[in-house]
Amino acid sequence: MLGLMQSQPLLTASLIRHAERHHGDGEVISRRVEGDIHRTRYREVAARARQVAQALDALGLAGGDRVATLAWNGYRHLELYYGVSGSGRVLHTLNPRVHPDQLVWMANHAHDKVLCFDLSFLPIVQAVHRRCTSIAHFVVLCDSNKVPAGSGIPGLQSYERWIAPHPTDYEWPVLDEHAASSMCYTSGTTGDPKAVVYSHRSTVLHALSSALPDALNLSARDCVMPVVPMFHVHAWGLPYAAVLTGAKLVFPGPAMDGKSLHDLMEAEQVTLAAGVPTVWHMLLSYLHTHQLRLRSLRRAVIGGAPCSPAMLAAFRVDHGVEVVHAWGMTEMSPLGTVSAPKHKHLAWPDADQARLTLTQGRAVFGVDMKIVDEQDAELPWDGVQAGELMVRGPWVLCDYYRDPGVSPVTDGWFRTGDVATIDADGFMRIMDRRKDIIKSGGEWISSIDIENVAQGHPAVGQAACIGVPHPKWNERPILVVVLTPGCQASRDDILAYFDGKAPKWQVPDDVVFVASIPVSGTGKMQKATLRDQLKGYRLPGT
Amino acid sequence: MLGLMQSQPLLTASLIRHAERHHGDGEVISRRVEGDIHRTRYREVAARARQVAQALDALGLAGGDRVATLAWNGYRHLELYYGVSGSGRVLHTLNPRVHPDQLVWMANHAHDKVLCFDLSFLPIVQAVHRRCTSIAHFVVLCDSNKVPAGSGIPGLQSYERWIAPHPTDYEWPVLDEHAASSMCYTSGTTGDPKAVVYSHRSTVLHALSSALPDALNLSARDCVMPVVPMFHVHAWGLPYAAVLTGAKLVFPGPAMDGKSLHDLMEAEQVTLAAGVPTVWHMLLSYLHTHQLRLRSLRRAVIGGAPCSPAMLAAFRVDHGVEVVHAWGMTEMSPLGTVSAPKHKHLAWPDADQARLTLTQGRAVFGVDMKIVDEQDAELPWDGVQAGELMVRGPWVLCDYYRDPGVSPVTDGWFRTGDVATIDADGFMRIMDRRKDIIKSGGEWISSIDIENVAQGHPAVGQAACIGVPHPKWNERPILVVVLTPGCQASRDDILAYFDGKAPKWQVPDDVVFVASIPVSGTGKMQKATLRDQLKGYRLPGT
Repeated sequence: MLGLMQSQPLLTASLIRHAERHHGDGEVISRRVEGDIHRTRYREVAARARQVAQALDALGLAGGDRVATLAWNGYRHLELYYGVSGSGRVLHTLNPRVHPDQLVWMANHAHDKVLCFDLSFLPIVQAVHRRCTSIAHFVVLCDSNKVPAGSGIPGLQSYERWIAPHPTDYEWPVLDEHAASSMCYTSGTTGDPKAVVYSHRSTVLHALSSALPDALNLSARDCVMPVVPMFHVHAWGLPYAAVLTGAKLVFPGPAMDGKSLHDLMEAEQVTLAAGVPTVWHMLLSYLHTHQLRLRSLRRAVIGGAPCSPAMLAAFRVDHGVEVVHAWGMTEMSPLGTVSAPKHKHLAWPDADQARLTLTQGRAVFGVDMKIVDEQDAELPWDGVQAGELMVRGPWVLCDYYRDPGVSPVTDGWFRTGDVATIDADGFMRIMDRRKDIIKSGGEWISSIDIENVAQGHPAVGQAACIGVPHPKWNERPILVVVLTPGCQASRDDILAYFDGKAPKWQVPDDVVFVASIPVSGTGKMQKATLRDQLKGYRLPGT
Repeated sequence: MLGLMQSQPLLTASLIRHAERHHGDGEVISRRVEGDIHRTRYREVAARARQVAQALDALGLAGGDRVATLAWNGYRHLELYYGVSGSGRVLHTLNPRVHPDQLVWMANHAHDKVLCFDLSFLPIVQAVHRRCTSIAHFVVLCDSNKVPAGSGIPGLQSYERWIAPHPTDYEWPVLDEHAASSMCYTSGTTGDPKAVVYSHRSTVLHALSSALPDALNLSARDCVMPVVPMFHVHAWGLPYAAVLTGAKLVFPGPAMDGKSLHDLMEAEQVTLAAGVPTVWHMLLSYLHTHQLRLRSLRRAVIGGAPCSPAMLAAFRVDHGVEVVHAWGMTEMSPLGTVSAPKHKHLAWPDADQARLTLTQGRAVFGVDMKIVDEQDAELPWDGVQAGELMVRGPWVLCDYYRDPGVSPVTDGWFRTGDVATIDADGFMRIMDRRKDIIKSGGEWISSIDIENVAQGHPAVGQAACIGVPHPKWNERPILVVVLTPGCQASRDDILAYFDGKAPKWQVPDDVVFVASIPVSGTGKMQKATLRDQLKGYRLPGT
């Protein structure tokens, strides 16, 4: 017996349609590549997204054809999000931070037909366009009078000229909700990049669940700033979730330094902002140096890498900002868990609440998780036993796109590659990436835990903990440190700082001072590269 | 090109599974028919729901078979919600307030196979069971030692004995998400009752959207009391949405008097409660009489009938409780709109915010609405032009079950039968039911507006405005009043009260004092019956 309910598919177009009808005057603010501040409204974004759809029709793009973007966070990128996927094409957000050779590889692997890029990425496009063999149309995201003459890019035209001739009265097609709406490549540390292909259904369900009070808690009372780039897992889905709720949107463009972010947050009264620790670190340092406060911000979403206790304290204590510590993956659209307290936690002492916030949190509705031992047997949720984390749900991938490798999914569960514990309340704590965890004398040491302790030392700007070979213990941890500018500290100073903060056997055996630690295009420390760089290193006495 | 995301269907079992794994110790508190307070946890509810599934298997019930309930809000009813639908059967919640003949009609029309009922409804079941020809199994929701001897109901057994033999290790089947999960009959004022059949998909999507911050704003920090009965559109979906979020649940059972509700709210620290104005009226009167306060309640959801300004003021001003004014229909699962302010409204003066709250609000994501004129042409959203409200969305019905009548859906839009305006911000205001609106001299008078004014008069306990024939104006409004116990007021007193509160031409022509106004099984005033009762009435001077 079937239900007798209407059968509307879940489509990205339904998000922008809802915003247009119910929040037509909702603001969308963007700092542009040109440096100025641009203001528009959902009504206008929706109309221009329909013009994009018409422009794609005019190019003869078929349903399912890929349209790539190489762009910062801004209103034109938002229009492309909806115009491309809403009309049945697939949005492919390229990450400008990866090596140009990888960009070429990705564009060709995805078979992109159109590339829309920010003016600031012109040099990249000039360097690679000849090798991107499937791309037939190049659109630069600027006004028509800003298109550089003699760029060498065939048929290059401005976004504004491209969409201008087209009417705004396009009817969004009724698509299969399982159709692809967008795709994103993970910048794998080994092997070729792998593409995750999102569907309309997964995107809308993810938007719904991530707006819930126990997730990002988004409403039409919010002003949302996605600092995390729209080329990085869709800025964690915020361009969908914010539009769903009708929240005001503020895009920082390319300017993610502390001053630019702070200025824009204060000017537009941002209530929620989302970014990786690296960005927050820059903002907090800037605020500290200039004795400034965050006056409108209520919630800072921290993801992409773990939030350190020092960062948590800076937000909570210095600025009265609630930290929403989230965990996810490109393969998960990305939201998996959020460290939202339950009712019983509200009565806990502050220090205990902080400890809870520093876990990766509990699964948002829709995501199911488990931890397994080396034989894939499920481990108990006791907060102690650690195993590989596996997840499933309607916005978790079932396979990579055109990938000949081993399936990332076992019996319906995606292997995250993370080692984690889960406690009886469902709070998950990532110990480490499976490949980064340090195996010392049969015990596991979480490199993340060690880094978190080190971050508390005032002279430590950045810290990475890696395992190095040891004849007796198999591996021992060492700490790689970038000093805070203007600060000094010795190896022994830093190691002494661990007293009482970590079990003795987990304290690193040595400290190596470096000028910088390699980070990936998405701001994550690249420990594989770091290990390579330190290949010649030998532990004292070994 | 299809997405490469996992294909988990949206099923009610996924809700209870999530609660069990992530909120296993989340409390479910029930005042029982016996009068005592029962305490359990999601872990236990989930385990017992699986026993229900096993018990249904043992009875040989096929997928899609209907299992009826005749029960107040409580944990056993919750277990049936999940055990019945989770195992692929269809939960049919019967409304004990309708006439027994109608109950028989509904049970036979639905072809119910099992009936689970509260002990307090034994007399009803004794009276009707012989005529419910499809029901083969009768289960009374009580302990085994409470089953009345010699009930005359064949094979009657207690719920506890029924489920006890069955193990708790049942695997929820992977069903088609479009499969029916439950059904509910509307107690139509004319003709036979009509059944709405909900699907797993519609139920889960409705739960997700109704938990959003701009809807009911539910989280694991909440303690939720559904005062609205679980036999009335699933207590507005709260047994699904609260479970989705892991909120504590508090069920009032049959005791919906002011004292019982207040005692339970204070004892269990309820933060959100949902009910119809009639119930809130009783609670507020009780609090007023006894000079009591609501100390834990943060939000009162008011639906089923419009919230009056007097009730809004009592909650906001006297008790500091936020009113969540919602509108929906059985045909909409039921949530359609919620009067949640947007960012720009937060700066409005209190009186303006109150006016906004008194509208039915704006559509929750997933629901699309429009107003149309008599030729079904769409009317503008200007807050002035009124037309019939039409809605669509994945939790709006497409047809009634086994109903030979005219389709309730036109071009994909469900005709609500309400006349409404919508303003530029999407705030919808129900003027009236299409059949209750008063047509006076070519203009429309909203009977609800008149009733709202009248409710402000301290001597007016209940008020109904209906149109009566008039030789010149076609119809003129009169006010039917039940006086507040212990109060007195004359016709002229009450009419004078309208001075400055309504346009002169909308002021009723007369007041008729009655001892009671007929209400339906769901607590709504039955104006058709009232008009019948007043058939002999003539306006003064006509």
